[in-house]
Amino acid sequence: MDERVLQILQEKTERNVADLKRLLRQPSISAQGIGMLECAQMLRDELAALGGQAELHLTPGHPIVTAVFPGEGPKTLLVYGHYDVQPPEPLEEWKYDPFGAEEVDGKIFARGAVDDKGNFYTAIKAVQAYKEAGVPLPLTVKFIIEGEEEVSSASLYDFVKEHKDLLQADALIGIDGNFTVNGYPQMLLGRKGMCYVQLTARTARDHHSMRAPLLVNPAWRLVWALNTLKNEREEVLIEGFYDDVLEPTEEEMQLLAELDWNPEALLQEAGQSEFLLGLEGLEAKKRLHFAPTCTICGIGSGYMGQGPKTVIPSVASAKVDMRLVPNQKPADILAKLRKHLDKHGFSDIEIESLGGLEGCRTSPHSPIVRAMQQSITEAFVLKPSIMPSIPGSGPAYVFKEHLNLNQITACFGPPEDLNHAPNEYIFRSSYLKGIEAIARLFKLYSQAE
Amino acid sequence: MDERVLQILQEKTERNVADLKRLLRQPSISAQGIGMLECAQMLRDELAALGGQAELHLTPGHPIVTAVFPGEGPKTLLVYGHYDVQPPEPLEEWKYDPFGAEEVDGKIFARGAVDDKGNFYTAIKAVQAYKEAGVPLPLTVKFIIEGEEEVSSASLYDFVKEHKDLLQADALIGIDGNFTVNGYPQMLLGRKGMCYVQLTARTARDHHSMRAPLLVNPAWRLVWALNTLKNEREEVLIEGFYDDVLEPTEEEMQLLAELDWNPEALLQEAGQSEFLLGLEGLEAKKRLHFAPTCTICGIGSGYMGQGPKTVIPSVASAKVDMRLVPNQKPADILAKLRKHLDKHGFSDIEIESLGGLEGCRTSPHSPIVRAMQQSITEAFVLKPSIMPSIPGSGPAYVFKEHLNLNQITACFGPPEDLNHAPNEYIFRSSYLKGIEAIARLFKLYSQAE
Repeated sequence: MDERVLQILQEKTERNVADLKRLLRQPSISAQGIGMLECAQMLRDELAALGGQAELHLTPGHPIVTAVFPGEGPKTLLVYGHYDVQPPEPLEEWKYDPFGAEEVDGKIFARGAVDDKGNFYTAIKAVQAYKEAGVPLPLTVKFIIEGEEEVSSASLYDFVKEHKDLLQADALIGIDGNFTVNGYPQMLLGRKGMCYVQLTARTARDHHSMRAPLLVNPAWRLVWALNTLKNEREEVLIEGFYDDVLEPTEEEMQLLAELDWNPEALLQEAGQSEFLLGLEGLEAKKRLHFAPTCTICGIGSGYMGQGPKTVIPSVASAKVDMRLVPNQKPADILAKLRKHLDKHGFSDIEIESLGGLEGCRTSPHSPIVRAMQQSITEAFVLKPSIMPSIPGSGPAYVFKEHLNLNQITACFGPPEDLNHAPNEYIFRSSYLKGIEAIARLFKLYSQAE
Repeated sequence: MDERVLQILQEKTERNVADLKRLLRQPSISAQGIGMLECAQMLRDELAALGGQAELHLTPGHPIVTAVFPGEGPKTLLVYGHYDVQPPEPLEEWKYDPFGAEEVDGKIFARGAVDDKGNFYTAIKAVQAYKEAGVPLPLTVKFIIEGEEEVSSASLYDFVKEHKDLLQADALIGIDGNFTVNGYPQMLLGRKGMCYVQLTARTARDHHSMRAPLLVNPAWRLVWALNTLKNEREEVLIEGFYDDVLEPTEEEMQLLAELDWNPEALLQEAGQSEFLLGLEGLEAKKRLHFAPTCTICGIGSGYMGQGPKTVIPSVASAKVDMRLVPNQKPADILAKLRKHLDKHGFSDIEIESLGGLEGCRTSPHSPIVRAMQQSITEAFVLKPSIMPSIPGSGPAYVFKEHLNLNQITACFGPPEDLNHAPNEYIFRSSYLKGIEAIARLFKLYSQAE
């Protein structure tokens, strides 16, 4: 690592903190359409001022900002971030102005301090450090910063599809999220995919329930159809559902075993005495991180107001979220679901796809993972906790699909996870170490093989 | 039959029609609370003017009118009717004022013309005919006319319970409803009961669906539990559900076989090519009229708005309407349901009872049925169609429970069933023949054994 870069980081500490606060003070609430263009312009201007080929792209939703900083080496690293934030409400629960960026006891309070401004901004400051130190970037650094992550990233898919050349890279990193509960910086190597469907049974119209002996009831049809999808042993029964499941490697299981987690807190929060199937320890962890799921997220049919109503409903629908793991493909699962329903006599059940995304996992042995692990260790003087796959999904599938890039994510937020909640904050020290980690990553990844 | 009574009916034709129109012109919309007390007072006054012990009873809802006309014989007949009507909306679809009682081509148009003023009022006019003819009533005639039938008869249960002596009788008749589609007066001898429950599964709170591998999902719990209640062969699987089912007698089956019905119209209306289980003809009819049911009337859980939401819902509920037949008891079925759910591992599913009523059927051989059949045949010169049991339920169970009386119902409305719809009407001729039929019934039932 070039000492001049580290030197600059030391010298520019206060400036770097002040610039983050300036960014945090610019509201950018995607759900409410507040300050979005202003925030995108601020980022575009800053990236341009650093000498990047910076662009603000209008989309059907909120603008996307991109920038390219050519470097010396042959490698290219793409950094993904999002400048939009969750609404700050309930405002009365904030101790400080959610867009005031007040600093108290080393904590900088603001909506977006962690999710995601205080995280992704470290990469911009890392680029700036090389510039100010007069050290050429050892690789090409590209940015894509969207404004719709908190509202489901609707414009991202088409944008990435249409800008493959602009965004092509050797590796993709996100910077978002928090330390573990025990205080370690985190790296996330994968996530689940999803096949989200709405299932519907319908007839011509509602009927008086006295006709139930003779007429089809869509609510029963739906219940019976759903019942064929998963049994009480939590086994998904769609034929072939598990065929392509990528089992975790020994090393991924080892990483999982080392992960901090607090099953007691989760059980208490859920009011359960034990996890489903009585799972404990590593088996429970394995299921949470590596097993595909089939979840009813909603059911609606007929009359659910006060008291009794004697009706055969004309429509019954359910929303079902199937979390997939690598190598399950949403389109394949959708086809298998159709075949399954038909085979079990439910060709009357309509399937509407409400979204599909592929899961992805980056090997712990890959150059980008090893480089990031080392750079975080050097900057924080703490070995990062590595989560081989999070239990959730995310927009990263877009990059997988169009650029064949798996995303890994670094997390520099505090152990106390207040993302989406009042009093979100980032430690000044974590932010500054985060900048150093990313600056080191540029160098380490440029040399990795 | 005393000729003097028939003579009076001839002479008083226009007066009897004018009095019905006066009653029809008094709005009495229970759902909207319009004209209820006025209508009840009008009836009480008329019954008192005929020399009955007439009373207007205030209830937590709308008033109930009773009257007792002592007669010579030892028998007592209780007549049940309701003076409340459905709201007339949509007003723009009425050809005539819904409370104008206009007569066109022998049809008297008004909300309540059939349901139930034009029907039950025949019994008041029958009593009046005996009075005016100077002929003593051959039996004691009692009336109970409620004002909440269209809004679920909430006050009736307690009222009957608290006025057993006042209402005690040897037989109970209702007068309500329509001729068959083929133009025959109808008699209904029974109806189904009901056990209506709401089933609920719940946990402490909603969760992100990424936690689905470990946390209980109430929507799945409910689907699995419902699935154990009825299978795709339409068999109710609650242990002992069918134990007490009273099978129809040979004679009831014969009556059923003779019933007019139009399965093609019902299939077309429902958009089905065939009835459930492929049933046809008498088998379909039998199931409709004599089989108990288990019907999902509503299900609600989680998110059912636009698009996907990835959530494990905290609550899932279903409303289930079980139509019972004689001798199934709602409390017994409720207990069997609890036992069934517990046995199948669903002790977590809460059961809330939203109402229970017993079914009832009067034997076609009973004196009241034979007397009514003969009196209608004589008055209308048409043999009535006898439905041994309707597929629906009704407030009649109240009388069964407190007075041990089965209700049979005579129907004098036109074949065109516009009850609850615009342009409801009764034929002048049917109304007048209805009065004669009830006057004949008084005599015939007083002599029946």
